[in-house]
Amino acid sequence: MQRILSRELNNHIGEKVLIEGWIHKKRLLGGLTFINVRDRSGLIQIVVDDKKEVEKLRGLQIGTIVAINGNVVKEERAPGGTELHDASIEVMVPVHDEPPIEIDKPLSHKSDNLDTLFDNRVIGLRNLNEQTIFKVRSQLLKQIRNYLYDNDFVEIQSPKIVAGNAEGGAEVFNLDYFGKDASLAQSPQLYKQMMVGVFERVFEIGPAFRAELSATTRHVSEVTMLDIEMGFLRNYEELLDFIQNMVYKTATSVLEDNKEAIKKLNLPELKLTKQFPRYSVHEIHEMYSKATGENTIGEKDLSPAEERWICEYAKKKDGCEAVYATYLPLEAHKFYQKINPNDPKTVLSSDLLFRGIELATCPMRENDYHKLIEQMKDKNIDPKSQAFESYLKAFKYGLPEHGGCGFGIDRFVQKLMGLDNIKEAILFPRDINRLTP
Amino acid sequence: MQRILSRELNNHIGEKVLIEGWIHKKRLLGGLTFINVRDRSGLIQIVVDDKKEVEKLRGLQIGTIVAINGNVVKEERAPGGTELHDASIEVMVPVHDEPPIEIDKPLSHKSDNLDTLFDNRVIGLRNLNEQTIFKVRSQLLKQIRNYLYDNDFVEIQSPKIVAGNAEGGAEVFNLDYFGKDASLAQSPQLYKQMMVGVFERVFEIGPAFRAELSATTRHVSEVTMLDIEMGFLRNYEELLDFIQNMVYKTATSVLEDNKEAIKKLNLPELKLTKQFPRYSVHEIHEMYSKATGENTIGEKDLSPAEERWICEYAKKKDGCEAVYATYLPLEAHKFYQKINPNDPKTVLSSDLLFRGIELATCPMRENDYHKLIEQMKDKNIDPKSQAFESYLKAFKYGLPEHGGCGFGIDRFVQKLMGLDNIKEAILFPRDINRLTP
Repeated sequence: MQRILSRELNNHIGEKVLIEGWIHKKRLLGGLTFINVRDRSGLIQIVVDDKKEVEKLRGLQIGTIVAINGNVVKEERAPGGTELHDASIEVMVPVHDEPPIEIDKPLSHKSDNLDTLFDNRVIGLRNLNEQTIFKVRSQLLKQIRNYLYDNDFVEIQSPKIVAGNAEGGAEVFNLDYFGKDASLAQSPQLYKQMMVGVFERVFEIGPAFRAELSATTRHVSEVTMLDIEMGFLRNYEELLDFIQNMVYKTATSVLEDNKEAIKKLNLPELKLTKQFPRYSVHEIHEMYSKATGENTIGEKDLSPAEERWICEYAKKKDGCEAVYATYLPLEAHKFYQKINPNDPKTVLSSDLLFRGIELATCPMRENDYHKLIEQMKDKNIDPKSQAFESYLKAFKYGLPEHGGCGFGIDRFVQKLMGLDNIKEAILFPRDINRLTP
Repeated sequence: MQRILSRELNNHIGEKVLIEGWIHKKRLLGGLTFINVRDRSGLIQIVVDDKKEVEKLRGLQIGTIVAINGNVVKEERAPGGTELHDASIEVMVPVHDEPPIEIDKPLSHKSDNLDTLFDNRVIGLRNLNEQTIFKVRSQLLKQIRNYLYDNDFVEIQSPKIVAGNAEGGAEVFNLDYFGKDASLAQSPQLYKQMMVGVFERVFEIGPAFRAELSATTRHVSEVTMLDIEMGFLRNYEELLDFIQNMVYKTATSVLEDNKEAIKKLNLPELKLTKQFPRYSVHEIHEMYSKATGENTIGEKDLSPAEERWICEYAKKKDGCEAVYATYLPLEAHKFYQKINPNDPKTVLSSDLLFRGIELATCPMRENDYHKLIEQMKDKNIDPKSQAFESYLKAFKYGLPEHGGCGFGIDRFVQKLMGLDNIKEAILFPRDINRLTP
């Protein structure tokens, strides 16, 4: 007999079927034994009344894997609206020990329980609410890629082992590469820009590594980044529109596709308008200073408090939980970004903020070979260094106006799923203290 | 005016349009200047007859980026069957230096020219034939993922920084992780198996790292691996069928979708039957020994020569360039693989061979907690080691019969595109000598 999944039971009412899965819950009620079996599509409720069958489960614990034959009966109170009756049980994999963590009830995500959560990760993820987080994550990635494929993007894989520390910036992990100094890539920045000269539009979804010494709720050593780069942009606005549309479409459709599972998580409703509000960093500093009395005018970047504040502001005023902080100040400028020709104290770069944190930075790039070299020198970066040889070649032999973003997938999942800590959105997070499992 | 892509010109015959792209080729013919402009969808031929317009290009080289207005005219001899006339040119990005490599003619992939190929990678990839390789690669990944999504798989991201060297085996890259010993993951093996207990079916496409000291045509330090793991398999054959169908569907459809571009590469026709022939390693040893006089019976694994031989054999006899070498000998057994209960000298594991090389190893896993521990001990692996704590937990609390594969994406692209060296299928390959670009 062919196995049937829980989500298919509704099409088999009145029939005898075979189901397979993990015992998720077991209880006695009015002389009957009810067991819930979990398979990849959800739960199945089974009524076992035959004593011989009940006996087969004696001494076996949650997690035991069973194959069960039974008749599908309509039953309002059961998960999915159906129940299996007249069950005949075969134990496929017996489990004799009680699991270290109870998986049928919502797991604690409180900050002082995170170690328990991660120490028992492989079992805790069997909880259906935990699974929802990672099913949503998988579907978000699928939808993001489809959005990009539909817009003519080519997917690339750039190397994760790179010479020295090309981009500078945050701390890197160093390694010995057959006797040469190498480090783990913090981003595909240079590679994706070079590939604009080949494919015009490229993206990569892959790991990025940051040896962050700080243990905050938004930092881990290994993140999943979506890197986008697109050539022949008309202007800065076109880039922001493109990324905004991606976020709007993927977030709303994934939540809609998982409506039932997400209901159980009691998430606040997502508020997004098709056009995300845009405020310049200067405007935000002014508004924040006026609202709070704390003077941030002239600060290099938005503080975490300002990021939260402007998101709350946009949610109330514009009805949108995503907001662009545009025209980052020159102090935040990286050598490959384009300075605003209309206001050289600012950069043609925006932070995309969502529910209080930065999801992505979206800058236009300097595509003029000579200006780029000047900007490198201004930052004391040696354009003659071997690390930049190929990169600069791409510009010397023609790169069009281009821009892109580095977009934090983990943060997107975190905020979409209402999680406090980025680690909760990662299957096996890596931080300064955690290297296993 | 809105930019039109080369592939769209056919819909605009008789109209005035704007195109943008790189000058790919320039020649004088009968007093006229012909230029080919490259955009992300191909080439556009432009006839420039106005002297003032020709003058704008004086001193500019291949790679110069232009915006051109012109009238679309049907022209059989032009690429795509259309040509732009009455061109008016705007130079967007001038290029004054001659490119270091000629991109209009097929690039040399001869083994003694590979360094030239990779030293000029960012420019060489502007060659249309080179692009085809990586467009096919991107589309293969898309189709593989769609095949897996359609079969209920959840995409996961496992950590690339792992404690110690958990799996053993080939050489690893070591790194210092905030004072702890860590290494770069050689595969998501342990993680994907643990996730079978959660999602039943998982996959990951990501980088894997091997500190291979050998410089062969099939080894690089950083590869892109497709890792698949699926639970509740009925048997070994079901796994092989599943992977075979994936290869058949994705390879045939991607080649079909890129028929025109691939024609220019002069690839040999792909021969695949829907059912791939299956020969046991023992049979292959026997057949090979008989055919060549070289005795390999009893050898642990297939030699590279045997891999090539059986692929040639299957191509001739079965009309299929993919073949499974089944029932690997016990000597090749890894602790997590399932020994064949019907012949304990063999393992329920197959190598998928394609055009002479191994693409994937496809084993069933030992899912019995106690047998697994025995198998670890047999290999002198300490089941009490912290590295295996979570892994063994997943088995202790119930893992169903499962199997999967580690599938080399680079090798698949290499062999599908008729490339001699795996590096040619990778944008920026990393080997013992090459760490840049």
